[in-house]
Amino acid sequence: MLFLLELSTEFPPTMPGGDKSDLMARELARGRELAEAGVIRTIHRLPGRLANIAIWSAPGPDELHELVTSLPAWPYMKVCVRALATHVLAERCAGQVSDE
Amino acid sequence: MLFLLELSTEFPPTMPGGDKSDLMARELARGRELAEAGVIRTIHRLPGRLANIAIWSAPGPDELHELVTSLPAWPYMKVCVRALATHVLAERCAGQVSDE
Amino acid sequence: MLFLLELSTEFPPTMPGGDKSDLMARELARGRELAEAGVIRTIHRLPGRLANIAIWSAPGPDELHELVTSLPAWPYMKVCVRALATHVLAERCAGQVSDE
Amino acid sequence: MLFLLELSTEFPPTMPGGDKSDLMARELARGRELAEAGVIRTIHRLPGRLANIAIWSAPGPDELHELVTSLPAWPYMKVCVRALATHVLAERCAGQVSDE
Amino acid sequence: MLFLLELSTEFPPTMPGGDKSDLMARELARGRELAEAGVIRTIHRLPGRLANIAIWSAPGPDELHELVTSLPAWPYMKVCVRALATHVLAERCAGQVSDE
Amino acid sequence: MLFLLELSTEFPPTMPGGDKSDLMARELARGRELAEAGVIRTIHRLPGRLANIAIWSAPGPDELHELVTSLPAWPYMKVCVRALATHVLAERCAGQVSDE
Amino acid sequence: MLFLLELSTEFPPTMPGGDKSDLMARELARGRELAEAGVIRTIHRLPGRLANIAIWSAPGPDELHELVTSLPAWPYMKVCVRALATHVLAERCAGQVSDE
Amino acid sequence: MLFLLELSTEFPPTMPGGDKSDLMARELARGRELAEAGVIRTIHRLPGRLANIAIWSAPGPDELHELVTSLPAWPYMKVCVRALATHVLAERCAGQVSDE
Amino acid sequence: MLFLLELSTEFPPTMPGGDKSDLMARELARGRELAEAGVIRTIHRLPGRLANIAIWSAPGPDELHELVTSLPAWPYMKVCVRALATHVLAERCAGQVSDE
Amino acid sequence: MLFLLELSTEFPPTMPGGDKSDLMARELARGRELAEAGVIRTIHRLPGRLANIAIWSAPGPDELHELVTSLPAWPYMKVCVRALATHVLAERCAGQVSDE
Repeated sequence: MLFLLELSTEFPPTMPGGDKSDLMARELARGRELAEAGVIRTIHRLPGRLANIAIWSAPGPDELHELVTSLPAWPYMKVCVRALATHVLAERCAGQVSDE
Repeated sequence: MLFLLELSTEFPPTMPGGDKSDLMARELARGRELAEAGVIRTIHRLPGRLANIAIWSAPGPDELHELVTSLPAWPYMKVCVRALATHVLAERCAGQVSDE
Repeated sequence: MLFLLELSTEFPPTMPGGDKSDLMARELARGRELAEAGVIRTIHRLPGRLANIAIWSAPGPDELHELVTSLPAWPYMKVCVRALATHVLAERCAGQVSDE
Repeated sequence: MLFLLELSTEFPPTMPGGDKSDLMARELARGRELAEAGVIRTIHRLPGRLANIAIWSAPGPDELHELVTSLPAWPYMKVCVRALATHVLAERCAGQVSDE
Repeated sequence: MLFLLELSTEFPPTMPGGDKSDLMARELARGRELAEAGVIRTIHRLPGRLANIAIWSAPGPDELHELVTSLPAWPYMKVCVRALATHVLAERCAGQVSDE
Repeated sequence: MLFLLELSTEFPPTMPGGDKSDLMARELARGRELAEAGVIRTIHRLPGRLANIAIWSAPGPDELHELVTSLPAWPYMKVCVRALATHVLAERCAGQVSDE
Repeated sequence: MLFLLELSTEFPPTMPGGDKSDLMARELARGRELAEAGVIRTIHRLPGRLANIAIWSAPGPDELHELVTSLPAWPYMKVCVRALATHVLAERCAGQVSDE
Repeated sequence: MLFLLELSTEFPPTMPGGDKSDLMARELARGRELAEAGVIRTIHRLPGRLANIAIWSAPGPDELHELVTSLPAWPYMKVCVRALATHVLAERCAGQVSDE
Repeated sequence: MLFLLELSTEFPPTMPGGDKSDLMARELARGRELAEAGVIRTIHRLPGRLANIAIWSAPGPDELHELVTSLPAWPYMKVCVRALATHVLAERCAGQVSDE
Repeated sequence: MLFLLELSTEFPPTMPGGDKSDLMARELARGRELAEAGVIRTIHRLPGRLANIAIWSAPGPDELHELVTSLPAWPYMKVCVRALATHVLAERCAGQVSDE
């Protein structure tokens, strides 16, 4: 099943610089795992902001929740989730993002 | 270049049923052309609504404007456009939607 | 899979009274079918408004879309859909709405 | 009487990790009591967020207020309450959440 | 049980003047009945607008729904309902609006 | 003159528990004075939230400002003020809140 | 007593041109009466829009309601009303708008 | 040239009481200068809130910016600025706020 | 003086096609006049929408109002106006839009 | 390619004055570089606020992201980005901001 996720991150201004770069390194590592495992199917940055928009694949909402909250920076994220259904034009799109 | 488009359609309640089905048939035909031409790269329906979310590819904003407004139902659409940038995780995503 | 749906209906002021009562009768009949088929698991009215909030069960977003748009009054509805995940307290709730 | 509650929690970034896990443990324990007492009738997680949506049963708004504010994490919650009325389809829903 | 209701009315611009004044006369008559029956406990106009804010008394949300939708102008109203609980200062207010 | 006030309080998470309970005690004492003086005519809690909705009486906006800002917790409040006018149904309401 | 009013007018697209100019002429005439009577104390146009922002003087909200709704174009207006209190700097302003 | 400004101030909860009263004293002094210099033409308090609405006069937006940011409490203000144009009724208003 | 204007146009669905194309032709002609007269200094389309964002030059808000409302499609436009001040970086921008 | 950017900055109230002025000096220096390099084509201040609106030129969204995030104060900015397309009136505007 596919979900459109918009994640934007806002670090508290009091977070020490070292903690922040450490957190971002762990965030990147976990992101790689999710991408390579086929969970994050496609991802793009919203330019100028610490935010991305991506299509995630998960068997269902429960697994999606586990996966999203496994991101180390999740406590600092605003998360918007929308379930996606099949569009009639999908089969005509060569690059269609799918679950399979 | 890639853009995330969210299109939702609302027909005026006074539109005769025949005009509406004719318009939707032409809309579908034009949508197929755009998908097969590689303009609409991936598209999903937002379930329960006459709305979709898709990634469009166009050389730039000018061409995007021409393409979106070529949709027969465009006068009845609310359109939200966001330019997309490359995310660092993109190269790890097997199904990454790209411009190429 | 479960979804929380908030449906609110607004008829165009120009709709003749007869068309409206006919539509509402068909809406009620279809609603009964969906309830009896186990699609609408629980439903409540938002008092004072032509609106309800309900938990729908469907195999996934595609089927949900078919089911919601099968409502005769759907063209006049504003629809908000949210996918639901399992909460850790669910197993403690005697009346928990589930998919099974 | 039934109420639809949407609770989302946001901990202050300065809260020490130990305080947070202690608070969440107490929150879970109190949640279990409310579920087992039949106050929380059905509850689901909004995936990807520290938020839930649930139907609470209470004799009236006064008792509801006591019950909600008995949650240890309540000071960190954004709370949305809506009273629920009976929908005509309710008696057709096998899993209908009720007060009784 | 008490509810705070904010009702604002917007007539469609195409409604003939005669229909409108007839509707408003029936609306006023029904409003008087509800006030005299103790349903509308206190009501004030929001100055400059076709809108009011009032405290309604009803045994519960079901009865409230019946009462609100009995207003002839209800189809043209935007309705906001909020359940009210007892405040600790209530017993100190000489003019406190109550259910009894 | 009457005003509808919606007051919601949010304490900073860093406020020590002792300061908070002291502040709330003083807030309650001042609230009692205002209720007993006939300033707060009727007040209700919005269930589940640290918020109330009340009708205040004051000779005019200047005096209202003095009275509201005399609340010890005012610096932590979000305040919404609306002037109230007489509604044609008011004289039919047995419990009508008035200025006199 | 003084009120800040923001009035914006939107005519229905189906209103015949003649009706519209007739209405605007009557609106202007009534506006002049209100200005000359000292009700509208100061008024400015919000440039580029059919909207104005003005300070109205009225003995209280009841009279204000009568005055605003005496505008012929009132049924097509969106109205925002805010009561105004005295600011400590007012006596230092040579052009201060006052009630007297 | 005239501008309508709505200024609302929110002090950080961590600001020491002494700093706050010092800041407010300097704010008042600067406000007096601006009023006496004819910059702030008319000003009113929004009752119940630390906010005001005023008409400022400045040769243009550049000078307005200098004047607003000269307020000592400006870093803690939310500022809304709207340019004002002449309304046709202005010449009929005895108390019309003008630039001259 | 410079203003940032965002204009979006929405034609009523009942407008006959011929009236619409006639209106758009007149709109274009008037737009050309304003551009060539130096009123519209720079203008861009918001892609996918019948909307533009432009910097207008006018001696002041009064003249701006005359100029904007001279657009034949103005009655169908939503208009957002913001006055612009000089930024410290402006003199470093080779393409800076100015009033002169 | 051109983008309309609206940047507003909000410093945390706990930031020491020295850090803040140092940051603003570095911000100004970087802004100058971007202006002189032709990245920031035109920029204006929104009067009364720590905010600007500017047209940026970048080969595409990726480069734009690099450029915006190179601003030292970026972590404290709220950023709104909109891609711009060519308007039919552009060639008539003497001061048209372009990419070339």
